[in-house]
Amino acid sequence: MTPFGKFLERNVRSLVTEATVGALADAGVAPDAVDFVAFGNAAAGVLTGQEMIRAQVALADTGLAGAPMVNVENACASASSAFHLAWMAVASGQADVALAVGAEKMTHTDKNRANVALARAVDVEALVAEHGEEVLEVGAGALFMDIYAATARRYMERAGCGPEVFATAAANAHFHGSLNPKAQYRTPRSVEQVLESRMISDPLTLLMCSPIGDGSAALVLTSGEFAARHGLAGPKVRATAMRSGTSGEDNTVVERTAHAAYEAAGIGPADLDVIELHDAASPALPLILEELGVAEAGGGAVPLVMDGETRVGGRIPVNPSGGLIAKGHPVGATGCAQLVELVDQLRGRAGDRQVQGARWALAENAGGDLGGGPAACVVTILEA
Amino acid sequence: MTPFGKFLERNVRSLVTEATVGALADAGVAPDAVDFVAFGNAAAGVLTGQEMIRAQVALADTGLAGAPMVNVENACASASSAFHLAWMAVASGQADVALAVGAEKMTHTDKNRANVALARAVDVEALVAEHGEEVLEVGAGALFMDIYAATARRYMERAGCGPEVFATAAANAHFHGSLNPKAQYRTPRSVEQVLESRMISDPLTLLMCSPIGDGSAALVLTSGEFAARHGLAGPKVRATAMRSGTSGEDNTVVERTAHAAYEAAGIGPADLDVIELHDAASPALPLILEELGVAEAGGGAVPLVMDGETRVGGRIPVNPSGGLIAKGHPVGATGCAQLVELVDQLRGRAGDRQVQGARWALAENAGGDLGGGPAACVVTILEA
Repeated sequence: MTPFGKFLERNVRSLVTEATVGALADAGVAPDAVDFVAFGNAAAGVLTGQEMIRAQVALADTGLAGAPMVNVENACASASSAFHLAWMAVASGQADVALAVGAEKMTHTDKNRANVALARAVDVEALVAEHGEEVLEVGAGALFMDIYAATARRYMERAGCGPEVFATAAANAHFHGSLNPKAQYRTPRSVEQVLESRMISDPLTLLMCSPIGDGSAALVLTSGEFAARHGLAGPKVRATAMRSGTSGEDNTVVERTAHAAYEAAGIGPADLDVIELHDAASPALPLILEELGVAEAGGGAVPLVMDGETRVGGRIPVNPSGGLIAKGHPVGATGCAQLVELVDQLRGRAGDRQVQGARWALAENAGGDLGGGPAACVVTILEA
Repeated sequence: MTPFGKFLERNVRSLVTEATVGALADAGVAPDAVDFVAFGNAAAGVLTGQEMIRAQVALADTGLAGAPMVNVENACASASSAFHLAWMAVASGQADVALAVGAEKMTHTDKNRANVALARAVDVEALVAEHGEEVLEVGAGALFMDIYAATARRYMERAGCGPEVFATAAANAHFHGSLNPKAQYRTPRSVEQVLESRMISDPLTLLMCSPIGDGSAALVLTSGEFAARHGLAGPKVRATAMRSGTSGEDNTVVERTAHAAYEAAGIGPADLDVIELHDAASPALPLILEELGVAEAGGGAVPLVMDGETRVGGRIPVNPSGGLIAKGHPVGATGCAQLVELVDQLRGRAGDRQVQGARWALAENAGGDLGGGPAACVVTILEA
């Protein structure tokens, strides 16, 4: 993966080239061995005008021109959806080697433009009916942060906790980010600093929110047979499950997706050694831990977070990369970046943030909103 | 599939609901049996603002809410790309039943808006460098028709033929369209009428060009095991191949894709009984027949077209549906609509345009342009 950050002068193609060429070199696979490419991107249509053939344009400098390519969208879950398809290509026998790429360039000379793009991750017809046509050009403000804030308030009521839980999760994220050379934010922050930072949407403060940023991440998947023939080694994909959300507050898409993934992998939440989850805002961390069954619903994750059990060195390290909060969240890249982190963890090459002896790893990536929760979710389980 | 046409008052969701509910009913499969949905759409981002979670919004009224869904783009090859992924989902064992849906709503109160959208099916950064930022809002005129016209002029030079070949192909298309109750254009046209219609981009006249239109088409794919268990019958997918184009005029994407499909199906062009191919403009018909190996390169398709061999009743009927020229070309729906036609042909239920005794059918769907040819191509081979 590229470093995540604000690279106003770079374009999607430049970011994608760096991640893709790097992934192929790291895997020891030549571009002409790649039989299938799934390319995840969510916002380039609005931000640069590039729709329809995003992969074919972005991958022109990688030696992959001519290969089968599909362009995949699923809002913030675009890159894990691409990974899901790359896995299917190998599992179907269509490909010996598949590439999953996620990319997003969100910084723009018009600083509001990323918000305009993110307003397209909901039912746009309904949004226009509510806000008028101009929402397509001016955006809906901090639409997703308002959604996350409402979720956070419901969580506080259910769990009987205050915002210090979210602030602790955020401080953990910033601590992990300080250990990750590719993170967008690398400054450790205390719980107090998080709580005292600017209020974005009560109870969310600035340091609890994922930033706007740019980046790309790529993964090479091969069949077991191809890996054996070429002497390649790496973690195994034990499950990749995808589900869609439903409208309304009884949206259980994360639980349903995780359930399917556990069943496919033949393990349960207690077996996990490390997790990367979709903390687009910090309240998501305890909530999703409960949805994943790692802690009991209704507040079971609160003591885990407060007692440091979700930090590297704790019982179940969560987002050792820094997560979306500190590593950053170029939306169409995030799902692949989570998996890059887990591959590094399972290979024991995560440096100062290494989770010792990690064998089972889970990634949860979600995106969009249908009114009450994510529109798309992918859960992936890897084994060392 | 829905009828293709101009339905200004309908939205993508309404078109998709009609096609999807109809496909499930026709297949005899309940919505809750569907394990995977691939949704192809190319232009809604520009035309309606809906990006990122197009499927989850469009399929909300179909009983499929909650199912795994991916949003797929590949310009005019979006729907066949969705079909390719749906096939992979079944072949990988991830799904017993998969649904491929393609949809496009191109009519708009701003009549230029579809052209603005289609200008996104090229390298947009290069387009902006050439035409300025305003190309993103005003479009590049008849960009694709100019591209097709240049291809037509090269073909005439190579084949030593005149525009009457293209006019004959167009007249055949309009004749076939007159036999298809779902075609956008159902009026037979003579070769003379085609040649005398308004010049769009020399040598292309209006009646040689696919129209702007709206529609949706859907297909249900199942494993052989599921079909046997539930007593379902239907044509078999013998091959689905996808390749990307390369920049420059030596782009052989259609040949490469067809070659891969023939190899997977274990047949050759001489075995085909019926073809649906991507005649976004009529000159594409003889050209693609040569790229598919049905006729020799450099003009081998000219006598086929001129002698009526590509009409229903001829040696190798091409585009009995009316093709993109007469059936219509709502871009993100076309690849699935081609396959709907071939399934009807192989099931012997194509009415007045039935190709008698058809056993092997091929669909070729291509999209986008990298400067010299399509950016994406999918070739599918079905057997009765």
